[in-house]
Amino acid sequence: MSNPDRDRIPRDPAADHTREMASKRGEFLREKTGATLTHVQGYTIDPGLLPGNIENFTGVAQVPVGIAGPLRVNGEHAKGDFYVPMATTEGTLVASYSRGMRVLAESGGVTVTVVKRSMQRAPVFLFRTAREARDFGEWLTQNQDGVRAAAESTTRSGRLVEIEQYPLANMLYLRFNYTTGDAAGQNMTGKATHAACEWIREAHPAQPKYMLSGSMDTDKKHSAINTLRTRGRRVVAEAVLKKDVLARLMRVDTRTLFSARQVSNAGALMSGSASNGPHAANGIAAVFIACGQDVANVAESHAGITYAQLLENGDYYWSVTLTSLIVASYGGGTGLPTQRECLEVLGCYGAGKADKLAEIIAATVLAGDISLGCAVLSDEWVTAHEQLGRNRP
Amino acid sequence: MSNPDRDRIPRDPAADHTREMASKRGEFLREKTGATLTHVQGYTIDPGLLPGNIENFTGVAQVPVGIAGPLRVNGEHAKGDFYVPMATTEGTLVASYSRGMRVLAESGGVTVTVVKRSMQRAPVFLFRTAREARDFGEWLTQNQDGVRAAAESTTRSGRLVEIEQYPLANMLYLRFNYTTGDAAGQNMTGKATHAACEWIREAHPAQPKYMLSGSMDTDKKHSAINTLRTRGRRVVAEAVLKKDVLARLMRVDTRTLFSARQVSNAGALMSGSASNGPHAANGIAAVFIACGQDVANVAESHAGITYAQLLENGDYYWSVTLTSLIVASYGGGTGLPTQRECLEVLGCYGAGKADKLAEIIAATVLAGDISLGCAVLSDEWVTAHEQLGRNRP
Amino acid sequence: MSNPDRDRIPRDPAADHTREMASKRGEFLREKTGATLTHVQGYTIDPGLLPGNIENFTGVAQVPVGIAGPLRVNGEHAKGDFYVPMATTEGTLVASYSRGMRVLAESGGVTVTVVKRSMQRAPVFLFRTAREARDFGEWLTQNQDGVRAAAESTTRSGRLVEIEQYPLANMLYLRFNYTTGDAAGQNMTGKATHAACEWIREAHPAQPKYMLSGSMDTDKKHSAINTLRTRGRRVVAEAVLKKDVLARLMRVDTRTLFSARQVSNAGALMSGSASNGPHAANGIAAVFIACGQDVANVAESHAGITYAQLLENGDYYWSVTLTSLIVASYGGGTGLPTQRECLEVLGCYGAGKADKLAEIIAATVLAGDISLGCAVLSDEWVTAHEQLGRNRP
Amino acid sequence: MSNPDRDRIPRDPAADHTREMASKRGEFLREKTGATLTHVQGYTIDPGLLPGNIENFTGVAQVPVGIAGPLRVNGEHAKGDFYVPMATTEGTLVASYSRGMRVLAESGGVTVTVVKRSMQRAPVFLFRTAREARDFGEWLTQNQDGVRAAAESTTRSGRLVEIEQYPLANMLYLRFNYTTGDAAGQNMTGKATHAACEWIREAHPAQPKYMLSGSMDTDKKHSAINTLRTRGRRVVAEAVLKKDVLARLMRVDTRTLFSARQVSNAGALMSGSASNGPHAANGIAAVFIACGQDVANVAESHAGITYAQLLENGDYYWSVTLTSLIVASYGGGTGLPTQRECLEVLGCYGAGKADKLAEIIAATVLAGDISLGCAVLSDEWVTAHEQLGRNRP
Repeated sequence: MSNPDRDRIPRDPAADHTREMASKRGEFLREKTGATLTHVQGYTIDPGLLPGNIENFTGVAQVPVGIAGPLRVNGEHAKGDFYVPMATTEGTLVASYSRGMRVLAESGGVTVTVVKRSMQRAPVFLFRTAREARDFGEWLTQNQDGVRAAAESTTRSGRLVEIEQYPLANMLYLRFNYTTGDAAGQNMTGKATHAACEWIREAHPAQPKYMLSGSMDTDKKHSAINTLRTRGRRVVAEAVLKKDVLARLMRVDTRTLFSARQVSNAGALMSGSASNGPHAANGIAAVFIACGQDVANVAESHAGITYAQLLENGDYYWSVTLTSLIVASYGGGTGLPTQRECLEVLGCYGAGKADKLAEIIAATVLAGDISLGCAVLSDEWVTAHEQLGRNRP
Repeated sequence: MSNPDRDRIPRDPAADHTREMASKRGEFLREKTGATLTHVQGYTIDPGLLPGNIENFTGVAQVPVGIAGPLRVNGEHAKGDFYVPMATTEGTLVASYSRGMRVLAESGGVTVTVVKRSMQRAPVFLFRTAREARDFGEWLTQNQDGVRAAAESTTRSGRLVEIEQYPLANMLYLRFNYTTGDAAGQNMTGKATHAACEWIREAHPAQPKYMLSGSMDTDKKHSAINTLRTRGRRVVAEAVLKKDVLARLMRVDTRTLFSARQVSNAGALMSGSASNGPHAANGIAAVFIACGQDVANVAESHAGITYAQLLENGDYYWSVTLTSLIVASYGGGTGLPTQRECLEVLGCYGAGKADKLAEIIAATVLAGDISLGCAVLSDEWVTAHEQLGRNRP
Repeated sequence: MSNPDRDRIPRDPAADHTREMASKRGEFLREKTGATLTHVQGYTIDPGLLPGNIENFTGVAQVPVGIAGPLRVNGEHAKGDFYVPMATTEGTLVASYSRGMRVLAESGGVTVTVVKRSMQRAPVFLFRTAREARDFGEWLTQNQDGVRAAAESTTRSGRLVEIEQYPLANMLYLRFNYTTGDAAGQNMTGKATHAACEWIREAHPAQPKYMLSGSMDTDKKHSAINTLRTRGRRVVAEAVLKKDVLARLMRVDTRTLFSARQVSNAGALMSGSASNGPHAANGIAAVFIACGQDVANVAESHAGITYAQLLENGDYYWSVTLTSLIVASYGGGTGLPTQRECLEVLGCYGAGKADKLAEIIAATVLAGDISLGCAVLSDEWVTAHEQLGRNRP
Repeated sequence: MSNPDRDRIPRDPAADHTREMASKRGEFLREKTGATLTHVQGYTIDPGLLPGNIENFTGVAQVPVGIAGPLRVNGEHAKGDFYVPMATTEGTLVASYSRGMRVLAESGGVTVTVVKRSMQRAPVFLFRTAREARDFGEWLTQNQDGVRAAAESTTRSGRLVEIEQYPLANMLYLRFNYTTGDAAGQNMTGKATHAACEWIREAHPAQPKYMLSGSMDTDKKHSAINTLRTRGRRVVAEAVLKKDVLARLMRVDTRTLFSARQVSNAGALMSGSASNGPHAANGIAAVFIACGQDVANVAESHAGITYAQLLENGDYYWSVTLTSLIVASYGGGTGLPTQRECLEVLGCYGAGKADKLAEIIAATVLAGDISLGCAVLSDEWVTAHEQLGRNRP
């Protein structure tokens, strides 16, 4: 058995986010585990920036950043050519995304549109019978102005757009849907919904009990409800790929591509997959790490639906709809030094930039899907990994 | 419109992974976008290590690392107390996981077991009719020794365990299931399956056409098939939490906790969620970034099922089964400097350590779920975020 | 090869629904197949009633009807004791449901509540880009009064309650939600939505193309969207089962029952099941056949969520929420002779009775779930089938 | 409150399945509810046949039977032209299926193949820890011969093919997969698995506890696992529809049809639907009622995946894969008079006919899907319902 005091990670309530405390914790780990943290502690950032972002700060993970591009985006917020910073340790990834970006550029770029914004906190109210729960739902609809006022009193940028009701047993599951400006909004919506629930508990004659989450948010989790109703931003990236560009750059015939799409759709349906596209998660994770997004949201953000049509002239309409893309240009990790620099490469740091960032990420996903989707067909896939990923087992 | 030559990201085929080329690309970005990459380029790692991990290397994302623990693990591979490096920018996360680890420690630790290992590549073979596809399946069963030999000829550590067959229309979707030793194995299984498919194409009289992926792998995607059949490792973390420990540390009564579990289960079922637990993705993403795992695999790895029972004496059995946890202690990003250091903190670097890493991550997930799952009930949740996440909007 | 003329099923456009034509078709089948239809043609109903219900009428399936009950219902529409006609050929089914009804009666009956009504037709509108589709959605919101007027002009009892929007690629999938009075409403909503879509096509400047169904209705199919958003009626049946009643009648301890519920929940989550309850489809199918409902709707109607709590005193709260129960007391097969008689046994024939019927069916489902759910635990399950289902292989 | 004795449905243990007892129960219902059961009691079948099929027999539901066809089937078991009895009360259904059958006939018929047979009972074994559960799984693999012998000792026609293992928490969920000959097999597999579990409990040193169903069967429920792993029979119906036949009979262009398929696939993926095809449940329910199948199995049987390709010459490959079609030509309701007559019309009564019946039903489903799938496009859909379904509200 270990000694609790000697096992406790060193902390200094007064000045915890300092190089000194980080070193102390590094030393503590060396004693405990034998591991040295030379590179982890080889950071250039100021620990004083980190309260609010991390506890027990000990150093940094240095994740290699590569640049893919140029990516030509015809968005409403992102217009022009972008160079996309991607933080990853997976060989071939940046090269593959770049290749897809070239196909897009030579086809006139990718059109991207944010079609919905919706961030949630989903409490559940508990009653004695289903009837009381249902009647509470009616009361809620009649009192939505009061609820909204209570929720919005806690936030400058959040707006409560809609409260969905999902009755089950003697409960009413709710899904509070907000727009959250340039923040991802999980905290903002939690705080606002908590205030709204407290208001409800006082205003409603039965003073109903509730839990702040009834598991329908569904935070940090893929879900059918997110795919349907959106979580974060719903973004469509679409392009008409020229038949000859695909033939030249990707050695793929659009007719073959469309035929293969049918096979992928059937496979995705059969396997109950969160996505019928190639690998959205790769691009999303890489940009998320580089740009200070909440990387756990890859769980939600990677879901999407690929929809394609073969046009009469042989060109190929390829779209991906990301149904639950969660991004922020403000708050969270966006203000940390390397993260901010990467956002600035995209012109996406700070107020008013979240839609632009969402557009660029969705465009990036489409580029990567084109590259991998074609590579699988042209049999380059294995060999590309062979050549670039040399140090694999 | 832009000039393709001037827009092209600088590369040097002969010596691309150098500080010089990284600086050159940084300069290129500064010219193109106005952004400076001071901190991105403030790295200590040797770019010469990076071929095989990234293309167009330009610098690093410095992601803050905090240490949670001690985490007491009763695994088959991980035994004892561990300090878990977590790379994140989300305030309260490390503190919350640490709190759960304390609950676990005071309850005697967490028992963890790897119950299955299975990594896939899932090709699909195409025929004229369903009958031909079905008959091909029978041929395949009879010729599995040849198929296995072809697959395993390409790898030292990979073993082809089983080929699942999923007939649909005039196709046979296959799921090749491998054990992959200490590598995550996506590349290894891709290469092995490619060799197997080529062998099949030569050996089978019809020389059937195939696609290397029929979308049932389902790589970088959550899916029902992964939850059922496992992708990577299937790991169970379980603990009996003492009633008085939960009351003292988390201010939660186990009866209330169990009652709330029913509400969460119903909410998760209704919403079609990949997980009925609190937030596995948070812990997984943070350890993945720190330890050089493929972060895009959060898409698969966050799925899981929480199962609890209230014991007669009031103690609480809490388990989480991660059905698709993808980890590596070798290959990919594990050998990069900070990533390797973090793996060494866990004693998980190199050969024979992947199971140990899987156990520690699953134990970490359980700790985080206990912390958040109790906090939601005790109403600490919003206030904890308030205090620690000061710089949120 | 066959002779098309001689192979054609006999028809008489002028008087097709007659005993004569039915006999003629019976004779035709005898010649073609050797089968005689003595009992199929042993019907008492008047073929003249059947236009609108069937084509090529040839006789009837005689499906045995048993009576289960009394079922004590505390509904808003169904109050008191009911005898439930069940048409089935599965031995033990009626006996099992009756046993569950006795448990409910001795526990004070079952409380049932219709918590939502919503029947759909779900067209999809097609555009050139996602942006046009999204903007069309905004136009639609602004013009919903016109859309509603067009839809409701086609029906006396249907009301268009809400039009949900699901943007994907360059399309806008819509889900028109109606209340449909005492009809199931699939035809009514199809007609109304068709009128609405035609109105839209004329009113909108782009005269957008559409398909009347974009597969999100999801008619005659289970789906996640139905479970979430309701199809037909969402009905909750709930009861507090007395500990001693369950012990005496079902030989089951409520603590064991609750423990087993955890196992069932986990199994249902893992298997991606449309229901975590025992066998709602059995009761629904049997009442549907007896009462002239559209039996194909078992596909949607069987979905549901079971939610239970063990109360402090050891009693057991057991609820089932049927999320997509489709019933009618008017139209369809409800007016045919035996079907109408069975509806009359329930006091559910004709105008104003659909809610009552929904309540009785949900109560029946709960009774059957109690019976089977307990039997599995008390190990009676196999032996009950042994004794009653004698003629099984 | 009612008097339990007077409320009890009349029974006669000695001679319950008689006209006399049925009349007595009819009289009882008339007294209780005022309803007369003239037509319900207008049956021609012998109640003496019904023990094993129903309890509290009171009469029959007379469900109208229409005949669709001829349906040209190129099966392995069903070969030639068939006339399909369909019991339904939904107007246009028989006509619509007949129309699809004509399209198929003029395109050379429908090829049908049973590609897998698998019926389940899915017990779950309970342990103290995940490790014990996993080790039990290894023991089970080593002792599968004993398990199989125990299971098969209870049945003449059932064969235990495979035991799947799904570890979760401290449990091992199993899925026993059988072939069941010409019976649907739910009872047979229940009995066999019960015997196997009892054998295990004696043979294994820990005498592990189990529940006979862990909810992964998933009996009478749609589920992802059924779609993947098959329940009952997995059947593919496929046809190459001639471009000119579709143009002439259905007024649909195959290019348009294929384009619409993309929209349906995306809609089905987004809505989490059990099927991406038009309305398999309609045909299945109608044949099931006519032919004495267990109608509750529509819940499982309606699931499936439609897969199509537009061929180079403009013809259209259309397939539907029913993944969980549960049929019987023996046992259950198949031997009852009208049900047997209908099976005989198809040449599907008795031993050795279940595969044939499965082929015919799958072919019927494809016919119906072609008819409705084309009608939606050609805008005939609403008007067809208008004309034939006259008595709708």
